[in-house]
Amino acid sequence: MTAFSELQTPAVLIDLDRVEVNLSRAQDYADSHGLKLRPHIKTHKLPRFAKRAMELGAVGITVQKLGEAETMADAGISEIFLPYNIIGHAKLARLKALAERVNITVTADSAETVAGLSATFAKATKPLTVLVECDTGMGRCGVQSPEAALALARTIDDAPGLRFGGLMTYPAAGQVDANAAWLLAARQALTAAGLPPQIVSNGGTPDLWRAHEVTAATEHRPGTYIYMDRFQVAKGVGSFADCALTVLATVVSRPTENRAIIDAGSKSLTSDTLGMSGFGLIEAYPGAVITGLSEEHGTIDLTHCPSKPAIGEQIRIIPNHACVVSNLFDEVTLISGDQIVETVPVAARGRVD
Amino acid sequence: MTAFSELQTPAVLIDLDRVEVNLSRAQDYADSHGLKLRPHIKTHKLPRFAKRAMELGAVGITVQKLGEAETMADAGISEIFLPYNIIGHAKLARLKALAERVNITVTADSAETVAGLSATFAKATKPLTVLVECDTGMGRCGVQSPEAALALARTIDDAPGLRFGGLMTYPAAGQVDANAAWLLAARQALTAAGLPPQIVSNGGTPDLWRAHEVTAATEHRPGTYIYMDRFQVAKGVGSFADCALTVLATVVSRPTENRAIIDAGSKSLTSDTLGMSGFGLIEAYPGAVITGLSEEHGTIDLTHCPSKPAIGEQIRIIPNHACVVSNLFDEVTLISGDQIVETVPVAARGRVD
Repeated sequence: MTAFSELQTPAVLIDLDRVEVNLSRAQDYADSHGLKLRPHIKTHKLPRFAKRAMELGAVGITVQKLGEAETMADAGISEIFLPYNIIGHAKLARLKALAERVNITVTADSAETVAGLSATFAKATKPLTVLVECDTGMGRCGVQSPEAALALARTIDDAPGLRFGGLMTYPAAGQVDANAAWLLAARQALTAAGLPPQIVSNGGTPDLWRAHEVTAATEHRPGTYIYMDRFQVAKGVGSFADCALTVLATVVSRPTENRAIIDAGSKSLTSDTLGMSGFGLIEAYPGAVITGLSEEHGTIDLTHCPSKPAIGEQIRIIPNHACVVSNLFDEVTLISGDQIVETVPVAARGRVD
Repeated sequence: MTAFSELQTPAVLIDLDRVEVNLSRAQDYADSHGLKLRPHIKTHKLPRFAKRAMELGAVGITVQKLGEAETMADAGISEIFLPYNIIGHAKLARLKALAERVNITVTADSAETVAGLSATFAKATKPLTVLVECDTGMGRCGVQSPEAALALARTIDDAPGLRFGGLMTYPAAGQVDANAAWLLAARQALTAAGLPPQIVSNGGTPDLWRAHEVTAATEHRPGTYIYMDRFQVAKGVGSFADCALTVLATVVSRPTENRAIIDAGSKSLTSDTLGMSGFGLIEAYPGAVITGLSEEHGTIDLTHCPSKPAIGEQIRIIPNHACVVSNLFDEVTLISGDQIVETVPVAARGRVD
């Protein structure tokens, strides 16, 4: 049995027991409210966890890039939702190739995107299902009103090779009521127009436990819930005891009484603060503050630590944002409590396009 | 000839002509001041540019991780400086293996690090050269005073298997005078004690053109200078016309008159702001502001753009921080002006340990 002390740092540890609890808890919640779950794999990028979520009852997976979809399809997953505007000949050709071997569904928020999809699928043997992406408050992609959603649904419905599948949103965190009202109005408008949406897909971990309040939604797409992180704990979605992903780092310097330097910097933890101060929580030294990161160094203020870590000591860090950490490591080490189980490649890491 | 429009985005473009100008300009500057150059490869992670810098006169390369050193050694580079506290049995064994095939030099800032190095190299056929890392103002690693530098130099000098090689600092940007005074005092103390430093290694691109003012230094280790970026331009080190690395992205949505969404998010540009507002400069739309990034989306405010990019249009972005972008892409596309030359793997990407 390898001890953590044998691992070279920085390393990412994934606690399988916590993963199982997090996956099950969300599936149970969804089941109890008659919601479907279509988890986002961007957080873990590992086929095994995508499959485990489906074994527990998820109706499919969500990915954010064609490359992620290709990796998951290669791993045997056949129900894939890619909520993105796929644009350009090369990517449309990849989408078509994917559609020939798995069930893949995409989104569009403009007539331009719909036109490209339709041109690609007009002569396909089966139509491509397209959902309308809705901006219900996030201020990112999406049509701007329920009326615009109806108009684009009609465009999709009229487009050769395409099938209108429903609505999709990634909502602003905390704006549950506004999101619910937007989707309900859009659903009603579509139904009245004879285009009832088969799927209304809502998303995000921050408001996961309020997903049932969005009554127009048929499904939810949480991502970070599988690992949780410092941000989700700050939002009250889980506790630190639920956090399944930690970064194992080593103290490489103690230049002053109250300063420690670790070998995990922005190349391990990223500069994501998500509005918080500090760059992660050190489990064994909760009074320590990770005040700064350069690429290969993390600077820790120990002023409020009664005991202080020594040079050579390993520490475990709950990062601000788990998803971006997964994207930085070629492999992660699966653990169960304090036991190492296996080190595995992050199959969909770095699939940028 | 492939046009940029044939590339799938996001993609990283590296302008070889600008690289050549940036490398030559720095080498010429160093030569004219009798300084040696030992460029940091963390910015590009490509053996070809490491070799090109040495062809132009660099005395060796700098890396930040053992994995980077291993990649560069594999590519045939034999003069490698690793300014890091190498700690733990596994990493010390890797360092010893490297020392058997290339000239590798490291740093230490504590007796603990020196003890580990000495235990590893005590019976080696040739001693390991170790420099004392000095905190001349950065507040990261490093001994805290010239007196402490002398004390640790003596420890290294006394340690079996080690050879004291000199001093190293990564200084705080803009604090040239304080850095120069610190190093001069340490150099004088060492010389007076009979341990004159053979190397005094200064670093950083922000104060590259003032490197000659640090009179105690024998060499400089710039990194970002090869690509430049929005931060270095803000610091006055170069102009936007010197920036060799750009991220090519596609506008995938125009949800409102003044909002564009691109397919480059924090997985391409990172959340590094380095104290600036916005997440990069869009070359063709300098009035546009990249106001937010999620992993796969960049949100752009077009309010102050007289003309606005259309859905499907490609844009080129000068990132805030070039080094971290290199670490996110498995491959980069080398260009010359508007011509694509070659797409190459980023050999040392993701070498986290």
